[in-house]
Amino acid sequence: MIKKLVVIGVGLIGGSFALALKKAGAVKHVVGMGRSQKNLRLALQLGVIDEVADDYATAVEGADMVFIGTPVGQMPSIMRAIASHLNQRTVITDGGSTKQDVIQCAKDCLGEHFVRFVPAHPMAGAEHSGAAAAKVDLYHGRKVILVPQPKTSVRAVAKVRAAWLACGAKVVRLKAREHDEILAAVSHLPHVVAFSLMGHLAQHKNPKRLLGFSAGGLRDTVRIAGSSPEMWRDIFLANQVALLGELDAYAEELQVMRRALKKKDGATLLSLFEKARRARERWIVPPARQ
Amino acid sequence: MIKKLVVIGVGLIGGSFALALKKAGAVKHVVGMGRSQKNLRLALQLGVIDEVADDYATAVEGADMVFIGTPVGQMPSIMRAIASHLNQRTVITDGGSTKQDVIQCAKDCLGEHFVRFVPAHPMAGAEHSGAAAAKVDLYHGRKVILVPQPKTSVRAVAKVRAAWLACGAKVVRLKAREHDEILAAVSHLPHVVAFSLMGHLAQHKNPKRLLGFSAGGLRDTVRIAGSSPEMWRDIFLANQVALLGELDAYAEELQVMRRALKKKDGATLLSLFEKARRARERWIVPPARQ
Repeated sequence: MIKKLVVIGVGLIGGSFALALKKAGAVKHVVGMGRSQKNLRLALQLGVIDEVADDYATAVEGADMVFIGTPVGQMPSIMRAIASHLNQRTVITDGGSTKQDVIQCAKDCLGEHFVRFVPAHPMAGAEHSGAAAAKVDLYHGRKVILVPQPKTSVRAVAKVRAAWLACGAKVVRLKAREHDEILAAVSHLPHVVAFSLMGHLAQHKNPKRLLGFSAGGLRDTVRIAGSSPEMWRDIFLANQVALLGELDAYAEELQVMRRALKKKDGATLLSLFEKARRARERWIVPPARQ
Repeated sequence: MIKKLVVIGVGLIGGSFALALKKAGAVKHVVGMGRSQKNLRLALQLGVIDEVADDYATAVEGADMVFIGTPVGQMPSIMRAIASHLNQRTVITDGGSTKQDVIQCAKDCLGEHFVRFVPAHPMAGAEHSGAAAAKVDLYHGRKVILVPQPKTSVRAVAKVRAAWLACGAKVVRLKAREHDEILAAVSHLPHVVAFSLMGHLAQHKNPKRLLGFSAGGLRDTVRIAGSSPEMWRDIFLANQVALLGELDAYAEELQVMRRALKKKDGATLLSLFEKARRARERWIVPPARQ
């Protein structure tokens, strides 16, 4: 049982973590902190948190666990702000989308408390943000990746693991670099694709009329272009090297298709489509089994 | 009331057309034709059609309306096969995803019956194909584009329009070239994007493990990579010029994003994401209002 949980950044990720722990009876009291007082009041009204803290000192005082659910770009200032107020028992964890940079940041900012920092990343998201987007079952059946470091306390890892299991998630472990490379491919690149496609279509001379003819195909393909721009800027900057590699390989695949189209090479087009279709059928988790 | 409707290609598009007309009481008898006897038997079992025709001659004999719901690449041989069996009353229409090529094909193949050919394209689809994919409400609230030609009979257009209205669709008119340009942007390009993204990910060294870490974002982005490869090969070849234009402009937008990422230019990334997000919110039809 977590007696006092502090959620810094009460949005989709942090809010859903709090709701799921509450539902499981795994937390007693949830304190929220964040940049937007309006969002924190909403979180309080919705029962996502039980209290809004005035400052980091009172927020983290006597906390069992601090969960940082903000975009990764905000983590250095937050970690520096809380470090001097943490006690020797408090476990710190996060939901950041990149891990190498967050771990480096925690090393630099948390000082002696770094041993109780458990880097984590739940494989769930949505194109909505803010406390209103929090959902009690967001993590149900989803993978949560833990990235403990050689110095990370075993007790701290066990506490974070237990919290995620209580949320209904499946906990797996990866090395930080592997995490960032995998996520560049299966999450960050699709966002490049969706943002670029939507950005391209928005430049047509009459996008309103044009998009009035779109159907479910385009809608689903660009759904994640509705994601938080700030969060994604931070992710792109944090995972630049791996993402550039994925982007270039994807752009090359696009050119393979372009060349076949340019030559009106139907056989190659068919084989490219079949390969893609088969891969999707084999390996993409369908909604029902999530 | 359509007394006899012939559906050639009883898949998602043709099957859903038949089901919707039946539900509306706008058709009496539906005859199915197609390449796959197995699919036609399934269509019969599911009540999508009432009869499987043995050949084109008996199929179209005395028909009020012939709907061609096959991939566009099959239309020349089908139109040539039915032309000599059509009577002076039969209205011919289609659901092909491109219109300039289908119209040229109808001009070349239908002879004197071209005046009763009403080129059409419903703005609805799915990543599933075959008779089992047919849905009675597929066209409900969706746009159907009619592309009548200067010589097209007004009576024929009225009949096709009435059929689509009975299916619950909204009927609009476009010129053939405009249709193909709009569809290249809002439908064909998203398929390039989805097929390429899935094709790229399938080439990773362990795609099964990699994609095991994917979540709803990737799943939705590549949903349409499950679409019929044959149908899409035909569409790409038929709409090559417009699609190449869209593909190149999209690839350039991708490079704009790449350059910002390469320079770690957070301000440009943020502004690109915000522009895309705004365009999506303004112009993409959300599922609930469909």
